Amino acid sequence: MTKIRKAETSDKNAVWEIIREVIAGGDTYVFDPGSSKEEMLDYWFSPEKHVYVATETKESAGGSKQENIVGTFWLKANQPGLGDHFCNAAYMVSPSAHGKGIGRKMAEFSLEEARRLGFTAMQFNFVVASNTAAVRLWQSIGMEIIGTVPKAFRHKTLGPTDAHIMYREL
Amino acid sequence: MTKIRKAETSDKNAVWEIIREVIAGGDTYVFDPGSSKEEMLDYWFSPEKHVYVATETKESAGGSKQENIVGTFWLKANQPGLGDHFCNAAYMVSPSAHGKGIGRKMAEFSLEEARRLGFTAMQFNFVVASNTAAVRLWQSIGMEIIGTVPKAFRHKTLGPTDAHIMYREL
Repeated sequence: MTKIRKAETSDKNAVWEIIREVIAGGDTYVFDPGSSKEEMLDYWFSPEKHVYVATETKESAGGSKQENIVGTFWLKANQPGLGDHFCNAAYMVSPSAHGKGIGRKMAEFSLEEARRLGFTAMQFNFVVASNTAAVRLWQSIGMEIIGTVPKAFRHKTLGPTDAHIMYREL
Repeated sequence: MTKIRKAETSDKNAVWEIIREVIAGGDTYVFDPGSSKEEMLDYWFSPEKHVYVATETKESAGGSKQENIVGTFWLKANQPGLGDHFCNAAYMVSPSAHGKGIGRKMAEFSLEEARRLGFTAMQFNFVVASNTAAVRLWQSIGMEIIGTVPKAFRHKTLGPTDAHIMYREL
């Protein structure tokens, strides 16, 4: 069963493993696949962000339980000051845990959490258009494409690729 | 005559005066009108930015010349890593120097400069829709509205106001 909770400092190594694997593809996130652990954790855990992890707990034959971190996301204001009522977010699922609905669980949880934090809308600024699984997931939770930036992403294998801006009210 | 040059540390007080006056209106930029000098200068001059000023030189009756800073703008990559070929920019003109074409001069200069720095497109993420003078200026230099975020800006007098995303190739 997947649970979602606030990330703790002790989760950082596991979060880095997910980030490292996700950005290695150069196909879904802008971060340079060669970005360092320190650089990416500084970014992912920067002070203005609310950071969460998705976990799965496995019970061994002996009855002991082990919690594995299988996904992570953060929420933050998309703009400062007079634009800080809009939420921005980013999500990553461990490639080894794909296909289990973890992305959807994090997405649904994040909308509720963003509401709870007082945000009135969710905005994604850079959804890689060729990442159709993500685009479909966001659309299924009510996010709409409100603009597309031509060739904003240098996809590692596809080359220049569009990026969508997506939005929904909360 | 208006000239444009790289900003220097000694320009910071004059740049702050422009920022202070521009954000006071709460009608064109997201920054809280109560933002401090330190906060705004840290933002405007953050290390990843190329910062410029527009100046006018006046000659006094005695023949001495005085340079006044009447505008400022910066250029930076709109995204890290695999999105860093797109430029982002922000511009401010001293309210006392409006109507002299300084915004247009900075805009035209900035496109050339962005090209020179190797960027392949310019993207603005947050152009307040009610700021029609700015929107028209950007359109006149080839920037197109590629998306509009509903009510993304809490305008000081108009209330919830849309923000445009604008773009052009370089």
